[in-house]
Amino acid sequence: MQIEGRNAVREAIISGATIEKIMASNNAKDSTFQEVIRLAKSNKLKIQFVDNALLNKASQTGKHQGIIAVTTDFKYSTISDILNVSRTKNKDPFILILDGIEDPHNLGSIVRVCECFGVDGIIIGKNRACGVNETVIKTSAGATSYVKIAKVTNINNAIEELKENNIWVYACELGGEDISSVDYSGGVAVVIGSEGFGTSKLTLKLCDKIVTIPMCGKINSLNASVATGIAINTIYQKKIK
Amino acid sequence: MQIEGRNAVREAIISGATIEKIMASNNAKDSTFQEVIRLAKSNKLKIQFVDNALLNKASQTGKHQGIIAVTTDFKYSTISDILNVSRTKNKDPFILILDGIEDPHNLGSIVRVCECFGVDGIIIGKNRACGVNETVIKTSAGATSYVKIAKVTNINNAIEELKENNIWVYACELGGEDISSVDYSGGVAVVIGSEGFGTSKLTLKLCDKIVTIPMCGKINSLNASVATGIAINTIYQKKIK
Repeated sequence: MQIEGRNAVREAIISGATIEKIMASNNAKDSTFQEVIRLAKSNKLKIQFVDNALLNKASQTGKHQGIIAVTTDFKYSTISDILNVSRTKNKDPFILILDGIEDPHNLGSIVRVCECFGVDGIIIGKNRACGVNETVIKTSAGATSYVKIAKVTNINNAIEELKENNIWVYACELGGEDISSVDYSGGVAVVIGSEGFGTSKLTLKLCDKIVTIPMCGKINSLNASVATGIAINTIYQKKIK
Repeated sequence: MQIEGRNAVREAIISGATIEKIMASNNAKDSTFQEVIRLAKSNKLKIQFVDNALLNKASQTGKHQGIIAVTTDFKYSTISDILNVSRTKNKDPFILILDGIEDPHNLGSIVRVCECFGVDGIIIGKNRACGVNETVIKTSAGATSYVKIAKVTNINNAIEELKENNIWVYACELGGEDISSVDYSGGVAVVIGSEGFGTSKLTLKLCDKIVTIPMCGKINSLNASVATGIAINTIYQKKIK
């Protein structure tokens, strides 16, 4: 979905619509345009400055006024929606938190993992992270229809909310306890960091425990969706036994 | 690397060079051309029929004669090379067999998995499978430099050879024993099937045992590299404990 024109884009940002990116003219200079750009920046939205020719081509209305916001139609859930899954099923919560996954193929693969191993829902950040777009939906092989995904402004606040709900939050990172030697009874949330930088320091501090997948290689670098698959599978298999 | 021209491509096919694909003119009809195409087809090579304009563009020599074979520079190992890894390290063999993985991103991710969990080498088929190309090398994050990869004409013959070397061959498929409840002492090889069709029936028959990753979803469809990651990790963790 696209929102075109200065006022429409400004209102979309203010209303908190899920904006994947903003395409903006690289030669518009008037004050209303600049105001919308400032607003987009302060909301940490991804802005692409492009030629007017490209905007004209992308425009569906022919009236873009130098700015187009690309939004997604995917219906996000809330953290409450995710918490309600386990309440309804009368089981312990099992939640995945992604701290900045940027590749849509990885996100799609991760949604499949969650569908396979009974994860109630995924929490992703609004900024510097991949949202649910057409590639994610396609790569997920339909799993986006079954797994709830909440997009939050602040991952750390989300972690605090889960902890208030008696959920233990584990970060899957280097230097922690062997992931397969931990007792996962009760509510569990797992934090997976971004492809390039792992889990951010502040987020790591908030977690109850760091768990690590033991490895023996020289590079020891797993693709993010593979690492998530191994972590979620390990916890799932321990929980069912 | 590219091999261009009818004779050059014919000789490359006969010599068993690793050909990723053949680009052939969609309006060449003479007998030598047809002979090379027949040879390529009987070797089950991937053939793309394209316009001459595209061949002219792709040609590095300017003398393609309607046919270009795209080969790879990656130096493949043999099964003996892979068996020598464990002999040299005085440990049990741990080998991955891929029965038709077609996506280079998946293959790259799988090579990373093998590097992390001490897999001696990967055996892939020559036909209807992705070879080690630039995308694989890039996606593997350097792991292709550390993990031996053997490309064989026949996966089933390779399995027979491993079994003669006292290696137990497990297929990771639906309907088998819980993958985490098996004793993996001794030499182990794991077969992972293709993205679309899984392990072929004949190959499945040759395997000593089918092992299954327990799941609880509705779709229960994992990306091939994630499934490989979970399988290899499960076996590795059991072997080190």
